[in-house]
Amino acid sequence: MTIATERHALPEPEFVAGFHVIGEERYHHQHPFHTMMHEGKLTRGQLQAWALNRYYYQSHIPMKDAAILARSDDPGFRMAWRKRIVDHDGDAGNPGGIAKWLKLVEATGLPRMQAVRGEGILPATRFAVDAYIHFVSSHTHLEAVASSLTELFSKQLISLRLDRLKQHYPWLASGLDYFSGRLTQATEDSDFALNWVVKHARTRDEQDLAYAALRAKCDILWAQLDALYYAYVNPGWPPPGAFRPSDL
Amino acid sequence: MTIATERHALPEPEFVAGFHVIGEERYHHQHPFHTMMHEGKLTRGQLQAWALNRYYYQSHIPMKDAAILARSDDPGFRMAWRKRIVDHDGDAGNPGGIAKWLKLVEATGLPRMQAVRGEGILPATRFAVDAYIHFVSSHTHLEAVASSLTELFSKQLISLRLDRLKQHYPWLASGLDYFSGRLTQATEDSDFALNWVVKHARTRDEQDLAYAALRAKCDILWAQLDALYYAYVNPGWPPPGAFRPSDL
Repeated sequence: MTIATERHALPEPEFVAGFHVIGEERYHHQHPFHTMMHEGKLTRGQLQAWALNRYYYQSHIPMKDAAILARSDDPGFRMAWRKRIVDHDGDAGNPGGIAKWLKLVEATGLPRMQAVRGEGILPATRFAVDAYIHFVSSHTHLEAVASSLTELFSKQLISLRLDRLKQHYPWLASGLDYFSGRLTQATEDSDFALNWVVKHARTRDEQDLAYAALRAKCDILWAQLDALYYAYVNPGWPPPGAFRPSDL
Repeated sequence: MTIATERHALPEPEFVAGFHVIGEERYHHQHPFHTMMHEGKLTRGQLQAWALNRYYYQSHIPMKDAAILARSDDPGFRMAWRKRIVDHDGDAGNPGGIAKWLKLVEATGLPRMQAVRGEGILPATRFAVDAYIHFVSSHTHLEAVASSLTELFSKQLISLRLDRLKQHYPWLASGLDYFSGRLTQATEDSDFALNWVVKHARTRDEQDLAYAALRAKCDILWAQLDALYYAYVNPGWPPPGAFRPSDL
């Protein structure tokens, strides 16, 4: 006798709600490093370390998106998705997200070339970001797209961050263009990605893979902040060869 | 006028000495998590977390070595290198390093299946170990082999660890076979790898690549202990979804 354990696909509203449950638990909006940032408790050196390390992430986003583009045989998908590469790399006369992040690096007081060269970034940053690119290249197209759904939660975090950075670290003012740009971009991107994932995750197994992909992406973001906290807040031990702020 | 800045290859003794300088600075023998371990200051839960996470590393070593094997067109090299796979996977009647590490996991009081399934391991562990496999697959054969040269330093560390684990954590006694086995294996392996690297790094540029590969490998080991220290010692915050020892 065979017992059928058929699992039906979740209805759309329930499926979508599941992403928000994952975000509430695992998105890095509640990471202690961000809490300190938003309460004005980070030193200049800690903000330098954050901007420097996060640049490695920012600068690899278009490579991640190109890897996703390269997997799609649908011109419509590619047309929608290529916008992300333009947003980050910019086009004639319009600086993209990467150039704007370099302004943030400079506003913290670090030379832009240090970020461009990746001098002193934490190995853990490199491992996590490279894992992201490897993930979207080696998993299914559906999982690759679903891993981008942290954008569902980023608008709220960026909006809060923009307020708090202005309030607590006025000397950063010249470096905040990145965040104002992302406020509209992230919403457009997550609307498209969510609709696409809802349409393409047809079975319950596929829906579970999409959830797992979002969890994996949250792990990638969270691990970067764990490493920053360990190296620059508490206990405050940068690994051999890593950036050491003058105020550490 | 062109100024020639010719760089000669380092003579063998100097080249070899350079690896030891890197090891002194960057090998994880002096990581604070190891210091605590060797001073008997780790709790059972912290040792569980270490054994569980390190299992992910151990269990991926033969995949790393198979990736290196797959790159060599020299039967002599492959014959020497395949020993590593046998050492870790075992053969009929002889348990390999992976099986022995599972005995260590059990000696800490965790079920072996938790390690086999990777339940609750730190994402940072996964990212670092996967980075190692990616490194040996995507860099030159010379760099892949040179990245194994941490074995030059492992005998001394394992010998110290074996003494200190016996002394401070007598309840671990049934789980220490892994370390006694590695005492002879690591020396044989590093002798072969060092000779091979010395012979195949013919230019100064190649010698520098070999040094960089050893540094990269040290970063991979060090980052795993940073993540353990952050999650289970200080501040002691395991990321969402990670193992939580009962004594944390």
